[in-house]
Amino acid sequence: MRNIRLVIAYDGTAYQGFQKQPHGSTVQSELEKALEKFLREPVRIIGASRTDAGVHAVAQVVNFETGKSMPVARIKASLNGILPPDIKASRVEEADPDFHARRDATAREYEYYIWNADFQNVFRRDYAYHVPEKLDRKAMAEAVGFIEGTHDFKAFCVAESAVKGCVRTVYSAVLKDEGDHLLTVYIKANSFVHQMVRSIIGTVVEVGLGKRDPGSIMELLENRDRSSVGKTAPARGLFLTKIEYRRTC
Amino acid sequence: MRNIRLVIAYDGTAYQGFQKQPHGSTVQSELEKALEKFLREPVRIIGASRTDAGVHAVAQVVNFETGKSMPVARIKASLNGILPPDIKASRVEEADPDFHARRDATAREYEYYIWNADFQNVFRRDYAYHVPEKLDRKAMAEAVGFIEGTHDFKAFCVAESAVKGCVRTVYSAVLKDEGDHLLTVYIKANSFVHQMVRSIIGTVVEVGLGKRDPGSIMELLENRDRSSVGKTAPARGLFLTKIEYRRTC
Repeated sequence: MRNIRLVIAYDGTAYQGFQKQPHGSTVQSELEKALEKFLREPVRIIGASRTDAGVHAVAQVVNFETGKSMPVARIKASLNGILPPDIKASRVEEADPDFHARRDATAREYEYYIWNADFQNVFRRDYAYHVPEKLDRKAMAEAVGFIEGTHDFKAFCVAESAVKGCVRTVYSAVLKDEGDHLLTVYIKANSFVHQMVRSIIGTVVEVGLGKRDPGSIMELLENRDRSSVGKTAPARGLFLTKIEYRRTC
Repeated sequence: MRNIRLVIAYDGTAYQGFQKQPHGSTVQSELEKALEKFLREPVRIIGASRTDAGVHAVAQVVNFETGKSMPVARIKASLNGILPPDIKASRVEEADPDFHARRDATAREYEYYIWNADFQNVFRRDYAYHVPEKLDRKAMAEAVGFIEGTHDFKAFCVAESAVKGCVRTVYSAVLKDEGDHLLTVYIKANSFVHQMVRSIIGTVVEVGLGKRDPGSIMELLENRDRSSVGKTAPARGLFLTKIEYRRTC
């Protein structure tokens, strides 16, 4: 069997998330359906990150095995020809036989966009969290900084993994003031607990609104109290931007 | 009568252009309808630039007169509350009584986005011209440069204005390679003839594809032959980004 690695971009607005569900359209099901159509064999997609409903991806990595000999350039052209306009593959290549998009990933990067103005940005209405109230950006940047390092993210986790628990290592967490009403939070970690970024952003926005101190993020990492966390920020502001692997495959 | 000046952003995808039409929804008609709803008087919007169907605006400038005394902050909040999600006002302010958004404009700036990759960019599918073939970016940049200066743009004009003819002054025209498959053309002129930017881009893309020489742009400016011009580029790649006025009003 050949092992094929793809880099995928998707606008998550119309999907029930990445992972296949009993009901509703997902990115995984669209990919499998499109590949099966021209490979004419059952396809099982493995994704590096299971993004939630409404979350976007600039560079999700997935892989699948195939018994067919079709060249990767033709797989790419056929796949993009069949996929809907909101899911496309930017790269399709041969991978090592044992490459596993999720298990082999050593780091994931996400970006979260906040549009902070008294009017909505028409071009970001599906791609940012609109916060009309004035935000204390300095306090928010301080709060985001506390996320860096190895912590138990139980307070910021919707559904705890029975196997891995909630301890994760955040390599970097930075809030950048992009000017012109736009704030971006960049977070890179070995992996993320369920809804971790959106829980963090919700809490950080409450810091920006003056409803809590920047240090309350630190307290939540210590007391791991999910009930004291901020409201989960909307999915539409979140973008999966990069998956890292130890080796290039 | 008070004269109110607004800066408007819109995603043009769903509209039959800026200017009111007998049929179909336009940005002007949406603005007038929304303002009339809470000002409870007939409103006539004057726009700086009559963008075509599908063209976007980051900062269109418009004005209207009103007999009502409602403060501008309340006009802004009420208007944005009623407008659809793809049209919003970023600024609303009092203008000089004789301010006229179109007549007083001294320069207009447009940006045109070309996505040049063998796959579509899912996030720019309504906001860029997708050209999958390899483009000669150096030749395109040279071609764009010929546009600068005062010329008769008859070859690049769909419908000639009986009053003003086709002579316009382009203050600057630059193609920037933004990396990662994105090309942007920035054009600033005193004003533009109908479909001028899209006609230029269509011709410049043919230069990029090797179908004509960069110098053919110069020839078209000299021979003013509309039949030799390139195919008009799609509206979705075009953004009105700035209107300039002599005085700040």
